[in-house]
Amino acid sequence: MRLGTIFYNDFELLDAYGPMEMFGALGDKLELVTIAENSGSVRSSAGPKTVADYGFDNAPELDMVLIPGGIGTIPELENNALIQFLKERCPQSQVTMSVCTGSALLAKAGLLDGMPATSNKMFFELARSQGPRVDWQESARWVDAGQYVTSSGVSAGTDMALAVIERVYGLELAESVINYAEYQWHRDASHDPFAALLNQGVMPE
Amino acid sequence: MRLGTIFYNDFELLDAYGPMEMFGALGDKLELVTIAENSGSVRSSAGPKTVADYGFDNAPELDMVLIPGGIGTIPELENNALIQFLKERCPQSQVTMSVCTGSALLAKAGLLDGMPATSNKMFFELARSQGPRVDWQESARWVDAGQYVTSSGVSAGTDMALAVIERVYGLELAESVINYAEYQWHRDASHDPFAALLNQGVMPE
Repeated sequence: MRLGTIFYNDFELLDAYGPMEMFGALGDKLELVTIAENSGSVRSSAGPKTVADYGFDNAPELDMVLIPGGIGTIPELENNALIQFLKERCPQSQVTMSVCTGSALLAKAGLLDGMPATSNKMFFELARSQGPRVDWQESARWVDAGQYVTSSGVSAGTDMALAVIERVYGLELAESVINYAEYQWHRDASHDPFAALLNQGVMPE
Repeated sequence: MRLGTIFYNDFELLDAYGPMEMFGALGDKLELVTIAENSGSVRSSAGPKTVADYGFDNAPELDMVLIPGGIGTIPELENNALIQFLKERCPQSQVTMSVCTGSALLAKAGLLDGMPATSNKMFFELARSQGPRVDWQESARWVDAGQYVTSSGVSAGTDMALAVIERVYGLELAESVINYAEYQWHRDASHDPFAALLNQGVMPE
């Protein structure tokens, strides 16, 4: 099986690398590939750059798709190449996951219509405004709608990734991953201590 | 202020990116730079590559140093260029942090002698064998010895990073960062639910 993470400029580091750590611990069971509109280096919102192995034009088939959020989500909502790539590839996936504002991109592509979904709490309107037919959940660590699984902000993506690992590979392997990563998994998708921050978005200063 | 993360082939993704997420949320207060023996792309243990902005030959001055662990630690213990870089730069830093097996590299460089320190629980002997004069702590989420702060495996680095942010920038800013990242911080450095796994290291399979 193969997981593709979709990078774009000003993505949030942990949105991508929290889930990638957990999926990466599965070893030979899952290949991790990285994709952006164009292959090569991509800048995170914090500054450090990463590498996309593939562009949209040569990305391999994907069993799983991971879409991080970040401040870069906002300009990407107007990037037709990205939205078209999601429209083409996500419906073919077994599981498509978004973290934080990444669900705004899925909503813009129309892929969440009629489904429950969530997003970053502090910037919730960004997602909601992109999908009037989505059943947006204001209090949820993550929402598993089957083919589409959306998580709340940043760190919530890691908990969502473990839930997907449990669903696809079983609880025993998920627990093996958390011990390897010394991670204290928050297993209850409905427990959301950050729901109280709804739309109170400000950057730390 | 400037934080430099030291990359090497087969580093563990979250060892680097968990702390970098938290420090990156500080915005203009802290510049994040990435360094490796040679600038350019560096491969993680999970496969995806990252970018080192600087090589050891042109790395800028660093107020903080972050050293991730990972399976790549083992060959790097014999990499004199890396060990010399740590010997030269870490004593000049305000704070040097290691995650997981990264403390084995600091121990090999002699920088932890006489200090309390910790490492990944499942592979603890790797670190201990590099520093017979280090006061190794078998049960600790992280250990703050002042200039050197070492954390347990993988995810523990994120909790350590927040403790350093609290020490350097204050609790209010640390709490602002955790809300931004929707992170449930484990604030007690002495609480180590993974200590029971001491030296039981196996990769998930």
